[in-house]
Amino acid sequence: MLALIAGAADAPVNVKILAEGEEEISSPHAGELLRRERDRLACDAVLIADQPMLDRRTPLILYGVRGCVYAEVEVRGTPRDLHSGTYGGAVDNPALVLARMLASLMDGESRRVLVPGFYDDVRDVDPAEFAGNPVDDAVGLAMTGARALAGEAGYPLAQRVSVRPTLEVNGMVSGYTGPGRKSVIPAAAVAKLGCRLVPDQRPEEVFTRLRDHLLAVAPPTVAVEVRRLAGGRPAVMDRDAPLTLAAVRAYREVVGAAPVFLRGGGSEPVVPELLDVLGAPVTMVGYGLPTDNIHAPDEHLAVEQLHLGVECTRRTLAVFGARAIMR
Amino acid sequence: MLALIAGAADAPVNVKILAEGEEEISSPHAGELLRRERDRLACDAVLIADQPMLDRRTPLILYGVRGCVYAEVEVRGTPRDLHSGTYGGAVDNPALVLARMLASLMDGESRRVLVPGFYDDVRDVDPAEFAGNPVDDAVGLAMTGARALAGEAGYPLAQRVSVRPTLEVNGMVSGYTGPGRKSVIPAAAVAKLGCRLVPDQRPEEVFTRLRDHLLAVAPPTVAVEVRRLAGGRPAVMDRDAPLTLAAVRAYREVVGAAPVFLRGGGSEPVVPELLDVLGAPVTMVGYGLPTDNIHAPDEHLAVEQLHLGVECTRRTLAVFGARAIMR
Repeated sequence: MLALIAGAADAPVNVKILAEGEEEISSPHAGELLRRERDRLACDAVLIADQPMLDRRTPLILYGVRGCVYAEVEVRGTPRDLHSGTYGGAVDNPALVLARMLASLMDGESRRVLVPGFYDDVRDVDPAEFAGNPVDDAVGLAMTGARALAGEAGYPLAQRVSVRPTLEVNGMVSGYTGPGRKSVIPAAAVAKLGCRLVPDQRPEEVFTRLRDHLLAVAPPTVAVEVRRLAGGRPAVMDRDAPLTLAAVRAYREVVGAAPVFLRGGGSEPVVPELLDVLGAPVTMVGYGLPTDNIHAPDEHLAVEQLHLGVECTRRTLAVFGARAIMR
Repeated sequence: MLALIAGAADAPVNVKILAEGEEEISSPHAGELLRRERDRLACDAVLIADQPMLDRRTPLILYGVRGCVYAEVEVRGTPRDLHSGTYGGAVDNPALVLARMLASLMDGESRRVLVPGFYDDVRDVDPAEFAGNPVDDAVGLAMTGARALAGEAGYPLAQRVSVRPTLEVNGMVSGYTGPGRKSVIPAAAVAKLGCRLVPDQRPEEVFTRLRDHLLAVAPPTVAVEVRRLAGGRPAVMDRDAPLTLAAVRAYREVVGAAPVFLRGGGSEPVVPELLDVLGAPVTMVGYGLPTDNIHAPDEHLAVEQLHLGVECTRRTLAVFGARAIMR
């Protein structure tokens, strides 16, 4: 890829490559690395190409990422599982206690997160930003396979998956989970929680609020530990950054269509670090397809999309470089 | 054992042995077997010897067992796990839905089961029955290792673990449960539930009430299935049955102490079937020790307790036989 781009006679820009291999674990060292290598990485613009296209004919430019914070909550009752006949009625059940604690996190009707202060720092978004946004309920139903969609009351799907914060249980386990039944009162119960954050929520603060809430609602009959697993900040980018405008033109020329501008629901903790540490605008493009099975068995990238990506990148850099010369 | 008992010259009774090998899976075929073999099994009294002693010096006669009913509830949201970034905010989270459903089963303060009608058929018990009962909070704390005991408000521990019904989560699982984190919205969540029942609750009816409640509180965004896994009826026995009185005398003679009479918290579904089908009183004794690690690694029975059991059984049958002759 680098050779293909560097070999292009019409790319009058210098290119520095930064390979970030920890994205899937929330890039815990990205900020530290960027600060240490700030001088070597100094640049006018950053291009990230890890997004999908909406389909083969419809490119996408992402101008926002949600932040994230992950936590693990463990409820411990007794040193070991107890016989539910002998001891049923004697002690609190850690699985049931955890269920009550989790239930306290979200209102079942409005799907609003009930952690005090959770929404305090959430920035309002102009609904006009979502005019023409293609993510409607029909798209959501088709993509998720759900019987019905659900989410924070008062916000349409396109906003719920991009500019509104969320709280999910990513996993939970307690007691006996094999076939049939085993009559135990589990010794402990664990849940993994993940929040998606939006400007101007801060992962550390949301974690503290979440932890404090969980500890506050837990009964004194159990020991509760809340551990922070990972986190990253949200970011929103300038849709008129010079490199972004160059990418738009490249998409028009190479794919034959203007890109759809979207704020993404996922998290890419390196993005806010790049913006802050390098002080350069970030442009997020990509050439994957919705059929690539990302994060799933048989994940792949079609060879023709790779070639499309090389061609788009060459044109993007050419346009960006030419405009820079004209300035 | 049989040879030892049958060889005793002072046992003027006929002995029929019934080996019940499905007790740990709630004896699903016991009732059917008893009804089919009713004539061959006809008897004047039934002796079951599978209980522990309170300690080496303190025998126990159990005069009640709780019933049980087990269920598995599955909440299914989408055909597969979803990325919590892309789809966070789009759909209900099955783990969180299940947590809310489980939380609805019990009041967090009073620990009363909130399933409508759950207590309707529960028989009141005369508190005098618990005079001198050794199961106090200090015993409960020592045996469970819990930080604090908890259970249905208004009832002391001894009643909560024997004559009051309970509802426990025996296990639950959803989504990612390995180390670290994985940013998914789980496709499904499952919990295993177990109730202990007391006279005159019926397992089928309690299951139906539990299922109906769970289905009623589930939101329409998910598919919910509630499966019945097993069940057995509660029973309470006559403390003055002739064989029970004979067992008391045998304990006095062989162990040197009168037995403590207790109603048990566990379930033994064959007991109500024996009472109903054979129409004979049931006496529950035993020679295990609290240190036997029942249902746990290294489960065992001390050889001296086995010999004690043989001796007590011989004396019990001798006394029972002699009294029968005198009648």
